[in-house]
Amino acid sequence: MTFTPAVKAILDNYESDNPGTKANIARILTHGRLGGTGKMIILPVDQGFEHGPARSFSVNAPAYDPHYHYQLAIDAGLNAYAAPLGALEAGASTFAGQIPTILKVNSSNSWATSIDQAVTGTVDDALRLGCSAIGFTIYPGSDGIFEMMEEIREMSAEAKAAGLATVIWSYPRGGKLSKDGELALDVGAYAAHMAALLGAHIIKVKLPSNHIEQKDAQKSYEGSDWSAQADRVRHVVQSCFNGRRLVVFSGGAAKGTDAVYQDARDIRDGGGNGSIIGRNTFQRSRDDALAMLDRLVRIYKGEE
Amino acid sequence: MTFTPAVKAILDNYESDNPGTKANIARILTHGRLGGTGKMIILPVDQGFEHGPARSFSVNAPAYDPHYHYQLAIDAGLNAYAAPLGALEAGASTFAGQIPTILKVNSSNSWATSIDQAVTGTVDDALRLGCSAIGFTIYPGSDGIFEMMEEIREMSAEAKAAGLATVIWSYPRGGKLSKDGELALDVGAYAAHMAALLGAHIIKVKLPSNHIEQKDAQKSYEGSDWSAQADRVRHVVQSCFNGRRLVVFSGGAAKGTDAVYQDARDIRDGGGNGSIIGRNTFQRSRDDALAMLDRLVRIYKGEE
Amino acid sequence: MTFTPAVKAILDNYESDNPGTKANIARILTHGRLGGTGKMIILPVDQGFEHGPARSFSVNAPAYDPHYHYQLAIDAGLNAYAAPLGALEAGASTFAGQIPTILKVNSSNSWATSIDQAVTGTVDDALRLGCSAIGFTIYPGSDGIFEMMEEIREMSAEAKAAGLATVIWSYPRGGKLSKDGELALDVGAYAAHMAALLGAHIIKVKLPSNHIEQKDAQKSYEGSDWSAQADRVRHVVQSCFNGRRLVVFSGGAAKGTDAVYQDARDIRDGGGNGSIIGRNTFQRSRDDALAMLDRLVRIYKGEE
Amino acid sequence: MTFTPAVKAILDNYESDNPGTKANIARILTHGRLGGTGKMIILPVDQGFEHGPARSFSVNAPAYDPHYHYQLAIDAGLNAYAAPLGALEAGASTFAGQIPTILKVNSSNSWATSIDQAVTGTVDDALRLGCSAIGFTIYPGSDGIFEMMEEIREMSAEAKAAGLATVIWSYPRGGKLSKDGELALDVGAYAAHMAALLGAHIIKVKLPSNHIEQKDAQKSYEGSDWSAQADRVRHVVQSCFNGRRLVVFSGGAAKGTDAVYQDARDIRDGGGNGSIIGRNTFQRSRDDALAMLDRLVRIYKGEE
Amino acid sequence: MTFTPAVKAILDNYESDNPGTKANIARILTHGRLGGTGKMIILPVDQGFEHGPARSFSVNAPAYDPHYHYQLAIDAGLNAYAAPLGALEAGASTFAGQIPTILKVNSSNSWATSIDQAVTGTVDDALRLGCSAIGFTIYPGSDGIFEMMEEIREMSAEAKAAGLATVIWSYPRGGKLSKDGELALDVGAYAAHMAALLGAHIIKVKLPSNHIEQKDAQKSYEGSDWSAQADRVRHVVQSCFNGRRLVVFSGGAAKGTDAVYQDARDIRDGGGNGSIIGRNTFQRSRDDALAMLDRLVRIYKGEE
Repeated sequence: MTFTPAVKAILDNYESDNPGTKANIARILTHGRLGGTGKMIILPVDQGFEHGPARSFSVNAPAYDPHYHYQLAIDAGLNAYAAPLGALEAGASTFAGQIPTILKVNSSNSWATSIDQAVTGTVDDALRLGCSAIGFTIYPGSDGIFEMMEEIREMSAEAKAAGLATVIWSYPRGGKLSKDGELALDVGAYAAHMAALLGAHIIKVKLPSNHIEQKDAQKSYEGSDWSAQADRVRHVVQSCFNGRRLVVFSGGAAKGTDAVYQDARDIRDGGGNGSIIGRNTFQRSRDDALAMLDRLVRIYKGEE
Repeated sequence: MTFTPAVKAILDNYESDNPGTKANIARILTHGRLGGTGKMIILPVDQGFEHGPARSFSVNAPAYDPHYHYQLAIDAGLNAYAAPLGALEAGASTFAGQIPTILKVNSSNSWATSIDQAVTGTVDDALRLGCSAIGFTIYPGSDGIFEMMEEIREMSAEAKAAGLATVIWSYPRGGKLSKDGELALDVGAYAAHMAALLGAHIIKVKLPSNHIEQKDAQKSYEGSDWSAQADRVRHVVQSCFNGRRLVVFSGGAAKGTDAVYQDARDIRDGGGNGSIIGRNTFQRSRDDALAMLDRLVRIYKGEE
Repeated sequence: MTFTPAVKAILDNYESDNPGTKANIARILTHGRLGGTGKMIILPVDQGFEHGPARSFSVNAPAYDPHYHYQLAIDAGLNAYAAPLGALEAGASTFAGQIPTILKVNSSNSWATSIDQAVTGTVDDALRLGCSAIGFTIYPGSDGIFEMMEEIREMSAEAKAAGLATVIWSYPRGGKLSKDGELALDVGAYAAHMAALLGAHIIKVKLPSNHIEQKDAQKSYEGSDWSAQADRVRHVVQSCFNGRRLVVFSGGAAKGTDAVYQDARDIRDGGGNGSIIGRNTFQRSRDDALAMLDRLVRIYKGEE
Repeated sequence: MTFTPAVKAILDNYESDNPGTKANIARILTHGRLGGTGKMIILPVDQGFEHGPARSFSVNAPAYDPHYHYQLAIDAGLNAYAAPLGALEAGASTFAGQIPTILKVNSSNSWATSIDQAVTGTVDDALRLGCSAIGFTIYPGSDGIFEMMEEIREMSAEAKAAGLATVIWSYPRGGKLSKDGELALDVGAYAAHMAALLGAHIIKVKLPSNHIEQKDAQKSYEGSDWSAQADRVRHVVQSCFNGRRLVVFSGGAAKGTDAVYQDARDIRDGGGNGSIIGRNTFQRSRDDALAMLDRLVRIYKGEE
Repeated sequence: MTFTPAVKAILDNYESDNPGTKANIARILTHGRLGGTGKMIILPVDQGFEHGPARSFSVNAPAYDPHYHYQLAIDAGLNAYAAPLGALEAGASTFAGQIPTILKVNSSNSWATSIDQAVTGTVDDALRLGCSAIGFTIYPGSDGIFEMMEEIREMSAEAKAAGLATVIWSYPRGGKLSKDGELALDVGAYAAHMAALLGAHIIKVKLPSNHIEQKDAQKSYEGSDWSAQADRVRHVVQSCFNGRRLVVFSGGAAKGTDAVYQDARDIRDGGGNGSIIGRNTFQRSRDDALAMLDRLVRIYKGEE
């Protein structure tokens, strides 16, 4: 176990948490090839819920099997694997103790008629499956945001009491937000800040564009140059209690490997804590995915 | 009891379940004439709720009596009998121990003004009636799907803790779905996958057509020939964690026996785990139903 | 106590119930002048809630007093008395042990702006008031039917656990139903069947007309002659698990005594289990009501 | 303590209540200058909630202080004092044991956008503040009436179990009711009857006009002369289980003292149990209020 | 500790509270440079939730760090620090015991599509973080006010039982209120009064204008001159049970220091209990903020 000063410094920021929760944050931070660096790569596989099985897995058929993802995350030396209830249940015993897992406790799908998610897992599920954390999505801006916040407040309190960590996926959507606004810098930083205020231990947001959505916020961004992605990452980190909370970034839809590597360098250079990367891994062949993840690990280690 | 290697292999896929739940899955898989084969035929009788008593039973009046269905399922050597609360209560003692039962815990009806169901039974009911599983319908695509998912999450968690199995009827309906879309291949596979992610032990879907409903999913289905029903069944099985979850198919409205037999052969050849067949049995005379079920058993046994 | 073979045969149909619930069903079936016959007359007084006090009682002013109804039911030798919370509380001690009582646990009123009822009593209330059963109204067809079903599921489960019986008033109303449809034969039989599936011990429906409401159900009723009320009663009885559940009929608004007697004969001849008769009793003078009830008892005894 | 035969006779009507609740009803009936007469005057001060502080108290500034009202009720020798949570909390200790109190557990306000109230106090609050009863408003006729009924059912059951009494303010409003209808005789009697059926120990309604609102109820009121207010009171008393439940009347907005005295005489002559009188007291100077209350006491004692 | 007669007199007004809650009110009143005076200055930092991080903190970047605010409140000698869950969690251990804290348990945000707040913290959170009170916002006038009242009733009851104090932010908004009405004198006094009736220990309102919003309230304000802010403060204090409840005032958006000082003098002269002042502190440099707070302290001490 790589319990380094970097990890110790991060844990010290979680000053109100009990030893159980700190231990689970530490488990994620000390596991895998990035263990001890303060950086993380997490494999999330909830696309089957969000987009359906064929759109997610037909391009790489072995990925229909939940065991495939466990094994990929383990073999790539990642920090953690995140998935919905059924997918974790299907491998929780086989892979018990081999990699920290995060139970994604709410989910949406392509046929949803409202901007919302169903709560499909619980803290008790996370405990019986040996998970280190629960993961929960909020949609700031949506009509249902207050109810989503109340759901995660309740589940997060329960998780903290049980010694688990809480990861919040904070994805602005709906309501008064324009389509561009969903990825705007001000909106993304605000979304990250709200997740921090809600008590998240790890915050997951999308890499923001340099669009500013809210008129009242324009003034606060004027006079600075936001064209560099690393600077935008740095602003998000600042918005997460000036770096007192871990923040990881998702890369979105599958894209070329060069773009993936550049994102990782920007996250690293802006002080972000890592990547949460799904479709860009399991929608490639296993060999290609392992090669790409190897290079991402080296980027986060500062080796390239 | 026919606890065969085939059954053992299936149970091994339920690796996160407690011995109680595994035992109840085993009870269904080892009971009746298909016991031990890994195939199942289940008799479901909830049409009185869904369509009313006269439309369901007038064509075969003895079927007004709940005992009729218990006896039919027993005499045909089926794996299990599924029905709503009142119907099971009316025979639970008389037939205790003679066939595994599934309590259908939610129900709709012909006069419903929303695409939803009422929860009409509980896990406690299932336990006091000696059932092996609860059955729950979700309507992916409907406005109420998130709430339905939250209901089954709660009931399923309770069932698992009590050592019962969970069967999910996943029937796409409403919302953005076209009428054709309800039976589309992509939609059906997605519906089955969602049931798996929700933690179902046994998934019940309709036999899908070769229509593809979702534009974004077209690409994933191009380049394959989906005209053979067995291939469509195989895709649904693949969508259920690559076969790690049991999936059974319903045949829909009463139809000719030849069509019923062909469906069964396609399910068998596509790797499906069996049939759940209601109106096609009890809307025939008892003798005709027994003859038909006998042939279905032989088809699943590969004897014809 | 008249614990006859007829009563024993009826109780045997409640094969999943605990001895406490069976005893309470037996209390109703063995009490009064029809005790032991398998037939029942129940006095329900919830019209004060449904229509207001003046419309209910001004024609017979002593009926403003809740004691009046207890005494009427006792003196007429009826099987049970049913009323809402406040009305039972006002006499529960005075008449304790003199007649089985049914707590009507939900109620509507003339000023309601939705087709629904408020839950105004509980199983705990029924227990502390010494009742033998709870009574609950559902409105099949209404927008709120799923919620009503979920309310009675919960209360009925609680009642069964506490050794009480459940009576369901199943009154089709609202939604897609036409006004004629509320009394249609197919709708009434369906409503009775749903009450049975919900686990009711005693089902209360209105006497159906020979109108068939649902197009899809027409075929099932063709070829039979439904002009005789006794035949329609028989179909409702058949729809209640082929007679495995007790079903009683209400007569509606106050009318001439001859019509009341004819209804009773039809119920008896069609195999129904009796009458639940309110306004036709307490909206007459006490002497007239007692005379009428005496004759109804004799009709159910087959004495005229 | 003035535990007279009149009080004993009233308590006997509460035959299903436990000794704790009976004792609290008795506390109210035996306290103050009307103690033992079976008549009551209650001071309610919730106008600050309903109309705001300035409209309620600016005309008599000492009334801004919650202690003022406690002291006024005590000095006038009234039976009880009723107020919302904060107002009782502000004096509960100072005046403990000096006068029975009623915690008004729900409240509306002038800015409300729906015809409803918020539940702002609980039975536990009533117990820790030493109250004898809870008070709850329902709005028969409003869209929210079913939910309000379910709230008071739950709170009333809790109160009864804890030995407290329940007072229901039954104020018809909204829905299909015309403005005149809110004070109509049929509507008021119906509202009082519903409160009785809900299990109220003390019913509070407004003095009804001789308007009849409901077409279907016209017939029941024809042939009687309803022009005398005492007769209308008598009909309301009759509608409260023929006098088995205590019913008190409110006088509405501040008005001349002669009108207040006449109301009291009509209530007394019609068999009502007293007045609940707020604005007509605290919106006068303390001396005027005491003089007026002194005369009301003498009216209820039959001394003038 | 400065437990002065002034503090004792204030505590005596909370006569229904348990010693734990009194002790926590005393902690706030006796802490800091105003300790013992009966006056308070509270630092609230929930603007990150309400307006986003950049709009709140970019003008003074160190304020992105939650520790900054704890330290500012401590160094300025304030009475208490109030913030949402995540922000308190980030410093609760480092600053434990150095200043009383208030957990702001509900929050809104700039992207909200309804006039409401999410409950984002609990009494249990407040206890585990060592807070002295919970803070809750209500929006009198909004469509959701009844539900907000029911939320704070429940949380406040829980807080009182656990020995914590309750602070209610009462901010009229929405519904029938005009924009001017949100700050109107009648509306503000009414809002403060409702908070008092809801059982708040400390009431926070905005400084009211001399606009009168409600037609029915005009009469009550006629004949007095409301042009002096101190007089308007005095009316609000009067509306808080004639001074039996602590009331503090917020200053709104950042503005010139002279205006801030004048507000404080008016609050002091009108008998208010102090200021709750956020943006006007942390949106200045730390030195400027400390200088301004020093002067505010001296104003409340009557030293200038």
